[in-house]
Amino acid sequence: MKLLTVKMKISDLERFLEEDVGSRDISGEAVPEIPVTAQIKADEAGYLAGLEEIKSIFEHLALNVDSQFTDGSEIKKGDVVLEINGSSRSILAAERLALNFLGRMSGIASLTRECVKISGGVTIAGTRKTTPGFREYEKKAIAIGGGDPHRFTLSDAILIKDNHIKIAGLEKAIMNAKKIHPTEEIEIEVDNSKDAIKVAKLGVNTIMFDNMSPEEINYAVDELKKADLRSRIKLEASGGINMGNIKEFARTGVDMMSLGILTHSSPWVNFSLDITKVDLN
Amino acid sequence: MKLLTVKMKISDLERFLEEDVGSRDISGEAVPEIPVTAQIKADEAGYLAGLEEIKSIFEHLALNVDSQFTDGSEIKKGDVVLEINGSSRSILAAERLALNFLGRMSGIASLTRECVKISGGVTIAGTRKTTPGFREYEKKAIAIGGGDPHRFTLSDAILIKDNHIKIAGLEKAIMNAKKIHPTEEIEIEVDNSKDAIKVAKLGVNTIMFDNMSPEEINYAVDELKKADLRSRIKLEASGGINMGNIKEFARTGVDMMSLGILTHSSPWVNFSLDITKVDLN
Amino acid sequence: MKLLTVKMKISDLERFLEEDVGSRDISGEAVPEIPVTAQIKADEAGYLAGLEEIKSIFEHLALNVDSQFTDGSEIKKGDVVLEINGSSRSILAAERLALNFLGRMSGIASLTRECVKISGGVTIAGTRKTTPGFREYEKKAIAIGGGDPHRFTLSDAILIKDNHIKIAGLEKAIMNAKKIHPTEEIEIEVDNSKDAIKVAKLGVNTIMFDNMSPEEINYAVDELKKADLRSRIKLEASGGINMGNIKEFARTGVDMMSLGILTHSSPWVNFSLDITKVDLN
Amino acid sequence: MKLLTVKMKISDLERFLEEDVGSRDISGEAVPEIPVTAQIKADEAGYLAGLEEIKSIFEHLALNVDSQFTDGSEIKKGDVVLEINGSSRSILAAERLALNFLGRMSGIASLTRECVKISGGVTIAGTRKTTPGFREYEKKAIAIGGGDPHRFTLSDAILIKDNHIKIAGLEKAIMNAKKIHPTEEIEIEVDNSKDAIKVAKLGVNTIMFDNMSPEEINYAVDELKKADLRSRIKLEASGGINMGNIKEFARTGVDMMSLGILTHSSPWVNFSLDITKVDLN
Amino acid sequence: MKLLTVKMKISDLERFLEEDVGSRDISGEAVPEIPVTAQIKADEAGYLAGLEEIKSIFEHLALNVDSQFTDGSEIKKGDVVLEINGSSRSILAAERLALNFLGRMSGIASLTRECVKISGGVTIAGTRKTTPGFREYEKKAIAIGGGDPHRFTLSDAILIKDNHIKIAGLEKAIMNAKKIHPTEEIEIEVDNSKDAIKVAKLGVNTIMFDNMSPEEINYAVDELKKADLRSRIKLEASGGINMGNIKEFARTGVDMMSLGILTHSSPWVNFSLDITKVDLN
Amino acid sequence: MKLLTVKMKISDLERFLEEDVGSRDISGEAVPEIPVTAQIKADEAGYLAGLEEIKSIFEHLALNVDSQFTDGSEIKKGDVVLEINGSSRSILAAERLALNFLGRMSGIASLTRECVKISGGVTIAGTRKTTPGFREYEKKAIAIGGGDPHRFTLSDAILIKDNHIKIAGLEKAIMNAKKIHPTEEIEIEVDNSKDAIKVAKLGVNTIMFDNMSPEEINYAVDELKKADLRSRIKLEASGGINMGNIKEFARTGVDMMSLGILTHSSPWVNFSLDITKVDLN
Repeated sequence: MKLLTVKMKISDLERFLEEDVGSRDISGEAVPEIPVTAQIKADEAGYLAGLEEIKSIFEHLALNVDSQFTDGSEIKKGDVVLEINGSSRSILAAERLALNFLGRMSGIASLTRECVKISGGVTIAGTRKTTPGFREYEKKAIAIGGGDPHRFTLSDAILIKDNHIKIAGLEKAIMNAKKIHPTEEIEIEVDNSKDAIKVAKLGVNTIMFDNMSPEEINYAVDELKKADLRSRIKLEASGGINMGNIKEFARTGVDMMSLGILTHSSPWVNFSLDITKVDLN
Repeated sequence: MKLLTVKMKISDLERFLEEDVGSRDISGEAVPEIPVTAQIKADEAGYLAGLEEIKSIFEHLALNVDSQFTDGSEIKKGDVVLEINGSSRSILAAERLALNFLGRMSGIASLTRECVKISGGVTIAGTRKTTPGFREYEKKAIAIGGGDPHRFTLSDAILIKDNHIKIAGLEKAIMNAKKIHPTEEIEIEVDNSKDAIKVAKLGVNTIMFDNMSPEEINYAVDELKKADLRSRIKLEASGGINMGNIKEFARTGVDMMSLGILTHSSPWVNFSLDITKVDLN
Repeated sequence: MKLLTVKMKISDLERFLEEDVGSRDISGEAVPEIPVTAQIKADEAGYLAGLEEIKSIFEHLALNVDSQFTDGSEIKKGDVVLEINGSSRSILAAERLALNFLGRMSGIASLTRECVKISGGVTIAGTRKTTPGFREYEKKAIAIGGGDPHRFTLSDAILIKDNHIKIAGLEKAIMNAKKIHPTEEIEIEVDNSKDAIKVAKLGVNTIMFDNMSPEEINYAVDELKKADLRSRIKLEASGGINMGNIKEFARTGVDMMSLGILTHSSPWVNFSLDITKVDLN
Repeated sequence: MKLLTVKMKISDLERFLEEDVGSRDISGEAVPEIPVTAQIKADEAGYLAGLEEIKSIFEHLALNVDSQFTDGSEIKKGDVVLEINGSSRSILAAERLALNFLGRMSGIASLTRECVKISGGVTIAGTRKTTPGFREYEKKAIAIGGGDPHRFTLSDAILIKDNHIKIAGLEKAIMNAKKIHPTEEIEIEVDNSKDAIKVAKLGVNTIMFDNMSPEEINYAVDELKKADLRSRIKLEASGGINMGNIKEFARTGVDMMSLGILTHSSPWVNFSLDITKVDLN
Repeated sequence: MKLLTVKMKISDLERFLEEDVGSRDISGEAVPEIPVTAQIKADEAGYLAGLEEIKSIFEHLALNVDSQFTDGSEIKKGDVVLEINGSSRSILAAERLALNFLGRMSGIASLTRECVKISGGVTIAGTRKTTPGFREYEKKAIAIGGGDPHRFTLSDAILIKDNHIKIAGLEKAIMNAKKIHPTEEIEIEVDNSKDAIKVAKLGVNTIMFDNMSPEEINYAVDELKKADLRSRIKLEASGGINMGNIKEFARTGVDMMSLGILTHSSPWVNFSLDITKVDLN
Repeated sequence: MKLLTVKMKISDLERFLEEDVGSRDISGEAVPEIPVTAQIKADEAGYLAGLEEIKSIFEHLALNVDSQFTDGSEIKKGDVVLEINGSSRSILAAERLALNFLGRMSGIASLTRECVKISGGVTIAGTRKTTPGFREYEKKAIAIGGGDPHRFTLSDAILIKDNHIKIAGLEKAIMNAKKIHPTEEIEIEVDNSKDAIKVAKLGVNTIMFDNMSPEEINYAVDELKKADLRSRIKLEASGGINMGNIKEFARTGVDMMSLGILTHSSPWVNFSLDITKVDLN
């Protein structure tokens, strides 16, 4: 099912474009302004993301766009993901911005999809470890890749972490959160099975196992089961999870794994834009 | 020598902060607002970048900061790169944004520095393959790492690429650029030695060898030397350069190598923030 | 006569929309994106305002709108004030923002109209007691209701109030204002008939009777008449005027009455949006 | 406990100030720029909200502020809630904006507090029926008044309303929401007890009784109890709740009541600013 | 008397600075960041304007400023209008922006002052013929020069011009304006004495003689006097007025002359910034 | 050849429009909203600039535009440069902003063109002496007039001026610039022939003769020739150049002359907008 996306704000689109073009394209001025056709091709296989965004960018510059794909499509090397028709100079002005959106978003979607494939049904989630100013698109790419974008902002959900506990104490932090936000779910971070049991008894909704090994998590899940606390609590593993160990973490019995690498260190999927037809008459 | 940086614009700083915090920090509300001390530690070795930015962020929230390091410092695992004093809730509200700046910028600076170390004096340069909305900081991180940030925008310098040539023709594109911008340097992209000779004779200032192998570039450099054209032209290699082959490209005789991976696929350097002292009096 | 309104700025429209939607509509994602028809109905009688604004909002999301009404129309419970056709998800994303514009602006227009009806021809005016960030629309609603929006900003007209007089003295304040702004009209606030006579002799253009009872104002108007000063001066009553006493104030002989309640405490007129047709084929 | 608030963004503060002042204060120019003292007094009893905001406003104009109160304080007529020292003209320029913040926010906080007092422990919550562009402050005023601000944006929580059901069907809408957002709580709106039972069995987390009478709600709560579904579901009443009937709704057995009137039709609490000392030397 | 000015908005200040500096000052990077002293000197005589603005700019970059002058001061060639202390690089980064503010604003203030001197007491006013985005400062410079800034925006005052008359007809336009804005003054443009008599009888408040010669205006003023209409109407001359003919227009008997050249074609007053002391230790 | 221009940002366009219109056009409200035709005519001869900008402005307000000219066209008094069709009130609302763009940009383009005509092939360049917030359009007008816009920002090119030399010393400044920006051209300002020889030997790319007389420049050029340094260096004259002495400077042998007057003191070309047809049906 296609995700609902409020279209990119025009003020954002114009800000992004200005960041790349500056005051004017002094190289583009060296070519005549004539109708041309251009194609964006995938230079690598992967999963497509950013297509809606780049359509908005090209359309904002009065260019026509056409595609056989949608966000989320699996693509292989050489696939033409978008054909663009219109002013030569407008295409050149938008080229790099469009490729940057595609490369970064498809990179995140593709890595997410790979993780989802091997996670055995355990939800793959993102974190707030994103690039300042670009979170909205990085989170969307995770969703396109089949993952859960998780908290967009600190307003979205309560997550009590080690620093909250250091300041307020574990019980006090949970109690305060419940009192101030009686209708919000509470998630809390623990790093050992004993604390997991403790917070489960205090009535939190989700436990995040932070920087624990698969073995430690597995043990903690078992302890929760023994204490008959497992069923009414969601469990999340976080910290140090990557393509190499994701299967191990998946087998620990958690409901969700969150991976910072999805947004902070996923490599690009490369695309390139080529002028394929020039209307010289 | 420290780079001049116009301080982060307050409107940008507030926009970044709002992206992460949203309307309010509902987890932070679960802890009392009291004076605390926090430390940001490196979880990995690398080269520090983003320090000036995170100082601005914390200071904007009326927190005091202190550091033994500067941007560009080599850091090892465990180094405390910043100590922060002030309101518990303000520190929690700024934590993730600060770590995102540090992680991404230090990641880029560190990869750049590694490339510089093995480039044998050939300049390492960035590209415009950056994250939309964050280029300014990604380019700065390259400079901190010892690289050349290269064009910030299309207004900065003329670079005639394959698409320009497809539209206007090679000679025409150069001629137009010279006519419209008589005082600007002209760089042009070629993918074979024959074109390199041709454009050198047409008087361009820089030649970019695009997606050519080290052998092909080496051959082209030799041809330029034979034709007595090498000395008055700058040469740049671009396309497919990475840590694995950078030495080979460096030996081809070019003056500069530009690497998209510096900004589009460099992994983070991880940092974490820990509350280390709580003033409960 | 229809009021000229420069269309809502796109940057404002997008800011308002983002305030309500956030990063994405996670409830809207639970329904398919299909063509639907929706109707906005009045849940109460009143006078319509905000119609132009909500048309702009729906059209910005590529929805088609149709209405039998215009701003200022009298509406009764059940009237369909707008029909909207287009994407189900876009309608859901804009619903609340549109209803908030309609409810607040129609509330103000309706209260203004009621005041105008019983004011016996004395002008009903607004004040600057508006909601920060929404004044433009609140003032427009007053105009739609048949009132005078009065000063939009401190730049619009000179109004010397008690605080100015406390700082500069009454005569000095008037003298300064005349000297600096020789072509501007001067309005001054007084709270007794003696001062009214005094300032009238000093040549002000408008006198505002501030927080005086209808009797006191009536007495002051008579004194001005006796002193042959009434004819060349505009008189305004302000402070404590509401639906209950508006007739009394209207009979005092003033030209205008300004009411803070129009914008700061007018109740909403409620509207609701219903999906009336779903195109499932 | 004091709520965490990220300080008002400077760009917002400046935008609000410009909305009221325009290009310059032509009345303020009629008084000398000298040091003065001003006091803001409550003209009515109520609960204070907006104090932090107006401190930010005055401080932004380099004025000194002092208060014996905090947001949430009960105030009576005549209480001096803030004393301001500094430039006469700066105080005059900020006066109206400050009073508008105080009046509106205290109005909402006071009405909320009154509702909380008589709700017998049932949570009082806000809605998204707010003034465009001012929601952040209206929601904060609810929290200060002891209420729950509820969803800030459509991204915060899933709420399936009648329009969603008309488009997707009731079961399908719930199913979709669960599939796309497996970790989010789901709230759904019903208008009869039969549907309440149905959705409870489908596993939603919260049921909102929409526009039902206290009797109907009471009956539905009983039915849920009989079906042994009450304990694991939160119940919310919404629609037509006001000071007059709040006790009846509170007795129906719901956990929460949401009231549009808190933000869309609460009357102001009036405050005024008086210059109390002028330093003429 | 010093004019009240709300301080330059930080978001504007940062926008202006970025327009001049771009992403970074690559020339400034060639000098060490050390404490220096700089002086801004007048290269020509004139009247100073823009001083408050440039103080804000330098202070925003944490520089200390000191001046013996105020806006409106008469200055002669060589006068040091500002001394600045602080970081060498920050001074270089702000230099051009500061000089641009001073040069343009002082140019307008100086031309205005010259006009005021020879106008024999007739008010000298500006127009809306300003540079897009810079009106606020150009209008302020007129005021500093002793002129009347006149309408800032179309919201400020009613001025019925030839185009309004062509669309609505003369009488209808006046009638409509009176009806919609009963409390606003009405100014109307005429180009002959007959129309002047006509509109005076229709009760307008101000007549603007548009593009009429001094003789024609003089004749029209006499006709108004004969018809006993002069005393209650303000008269303004506009169109083609400059330093060469200002005396002739002043003698026609009008109250005010408005000059487009003040803002659209006034030459700069040149200033320069020199580093005068470098702290090398 | 037409210059590439990224279309005016909508957020800028709306900001400019709001600066002129304010909250609403209270004069425009006095005319009916009906279809009209308007023409913009040149009141003086000159070279047209700003046409693309004003088309964007009128089109943003849903007006139709038609022109027989393009930016750069030579125009004579009376030429109709644009015909506009559509809503009477929208035309009135945009009139002044459009004329301000045309007047200022055409003024700059016309003065530039006059300079180009008599410069004998020596490049005419602009400076950064522009109006804050409007540089983009002033620089574009120079290009339209046939000049070189020169540096848009401090990021564009290295220019070492007297202040840099005072801080760092001449040799040190050049050395630092080369080290930090090995691939950038370096321009340096000198005020005598001896320094010109010195910096030429240090390998700078361009020398700017600052505030030197034509004779002094001529002498310096000869000295450079004698030292065999002329051929590989670009030479620029700057300071005090105007229409009266431009020929003398052109004959000194420099490659380029930069003139602050182009942007800081060029007089407007006047245009006016007239309603020519009113559709009263």
